Amino acid sequence: MKIYDLVIIGAGPAGLTAGLYATRDGLKVAIVGKEIGGTANKILLIENWPGFNGSGSELMKNFHEQLKKHNIEFILEDADEIKKNKNNFKIKTKKQEIESKSIILTTGTQRKKLEIPGEKKLIGRGISYCVTCDAFFFKGKNVAVIGGSDCATTSALALSDIAKKIYLVYRGKKLKCEKINLDRLEKKKNIEIFYDSIPLEIKGKEKVEALIIKQNNQKQEISLDGVFIEIGAIALSGLAKNLGLKLDKENHIIVDRDMKTSVDGFFAAGDVTDSKLKQVVVASAQGAIAAKSAYGFLRNNTTKYK
Amino acid sequence: MKIYDLVIIGAGPAGLTAGLYATRDGLKVAIVGKEIGGTANKILLIENWPGFNGSGSELMKNFHEQLKKHNIEFILEDADEIKKNKNNFKIKTKKQEIESKSIILTTGTQRKKLEIPGEKKLIGRGISYCVTCDAFFFKGKNVAVIGGSDCATTSALALSDIAKKIYLVYRGKKLKCEKINLDRLEKKKNIEIFYDSIPLEIKGKEKVEALIIKQNNQKQEISLDGVFIEIGAIALSGLAKNLGLKLDKENHIIVDRDMKTSVDGFFAAGDVTDSKLKQVVVASAQGAIAAKSAYGFLRNNTTKYK
Repeated sequence: MKIYDLVIIGAGPAGLTAGLYATRDGLKVAIVGKEIGGTANKILLIENWPGFNGSGSELMKNFHEQLKKHNIEFILEDADEIKKNKNNFKIKTKKQEIESKSIILTTGTQRKKLEIPGEKKLIGRGISYCVTCDAFFFKGKNVAVIGGSDCATTSALALSDIAKKIYLVYRGKKLKCEKINLDRLEKKKNIEIFYDSIPLEIKGKEKVEALIIKQNNQKQEISLDGVFIEIGAIALSGLAKNLGLKLDKENHIIVDRDMKTSVDGFFAAGDVTDSKLKQVVVASAQGAIAAKSAYGFLRNNTTKYK
Repeated sequence: MKIYDLVIIGAGPAGLTAGLYATRDGLKVAIVGKEIGGTANKILLIENWPGFNGSGSELMKNFHEQLKKHNIEFILEDADEIKKNKNNFKIKTKKQEIESKSIILTTGTQRKKLEIPGEKKLIGRGISYCVTCDAFFFKGKNVAVIGGSDCATTSALALSDIAKKIYLVYRGKKLKCEKINLDRLEKKKNIEIFYDSIPLEIKGKEKVEALIIKQNNQKQEISLDGVFIEIGAIALSGLAKNLGLKLDKENHIIVDRDMKTSVDGFFAAGDVTDSKLKQVVVASAQGAIAAKSAYGFLRNNTTKYK
């Protein structure tokens, strides 16, 4: 079985930056993740990664290109299980089992579901959780975006250049987005905002035909062709939970300032942790810090780096 | 007097990123700092800012270009004083006085001096604290680099392509640098390393002529033309100290995970804080977090953003 100094689970901004730092410190590193770039690939336009303007997938390509110059192994699979075995960790994927002296978990998050009638049945038939991936299918059509965060707002903005009409449906009274995007939203004539509105059902036989919402206790049916659901994300911390790591109420992994978790030699970084600000630049910094902490752990606990 | 929502003191990676985030949230922001880019401009080669390879000044130029698209004011002066005045802060520079509802301090660090005979007299006459700035003056000459950190090592590496011979003088037994740079160092034939060595004096009438060191209790005189001093940095937290902010033993500003200091409405980010890993990506992330915290503070404490 292959033994690594450090295995990084997840290949998004946190994982790739952790890999960059760890390999520059001479560690034997593997990154385990199905998709290089992770959910950052799905960001339409990144304007707040310092010094860069472009899509998430472009930025992630830059991250990856830089890593290719270094001696780092990519295992393009999901990790299915992590077990602690004496001093090492065992990581299982579908095709292989590897061993590592330390772990950085950067598995990020996954989109929340509405859990309303019609949602499960119509996924991929007009219901989507990714504007970057699916906007083009709704050219000239009518769609709803559910949510009020910055993600929901930027999704509505992006769709306004493609779709005919966009209904932004939000349960709150005020959108929680950057002022710059609020200003942009106000200039768009094909976006209609429904505040205080809760989605009740998505209707459709073969594909999405209508969305039923409750606004101020009044039911309304909106005829449309697509529904984009942007109501936040849940931490993908299952691997950590099984190993007994401390999680917060929302299943984020609790880390200290050095990205240490409650298990020795096991670090976490990025959106899967309990840090408040979920941003690419924050995830990257946490990846760098986690890599330095893993290096420190190896220096103290193995003979190789003393 | 001009009143801002947020004044950022310092224009390095932390300050510029804080400015980017704050202005996108619609705050009225000024950045006060003599040099856009700060000490990051002096980094010869940045290989660990994710997705980028180039000089520090190139990266800082990218940061600045991106900010130009936003409505943010630059005051290209040093801040000389900050005073708390009822609910606001007053910031004095040589030419003006401005007022702000909140502050983010990102003044970074300044190079440590050796404090040995000859140093003060010969600064700029063969003694330098900045390889990026001054390496070229030593083409074909013999120089020493004092220090054992990653900065000292990369400085020695950079000089090895310009100078004739480089003496790397370090008080410890093992260099504290990335493995990748250690490997590069070993391949260089014109770098000689003195371990366990303490600089005692720099000699020279008009300009640097020799360095006297003590190695294992034996004095040695090395004839040379230049000395680069790379022994770390001290936090530039004077403005914060005068305002009564809590500092650690090395004068770094103590911050929590939200970049809050011990004074309400006063935040700090970057190398001036007590965070361990002094890296551009960490400073940037802290700038982003500080900006979000300042925004939250303004929402809670002023009527404008409620």
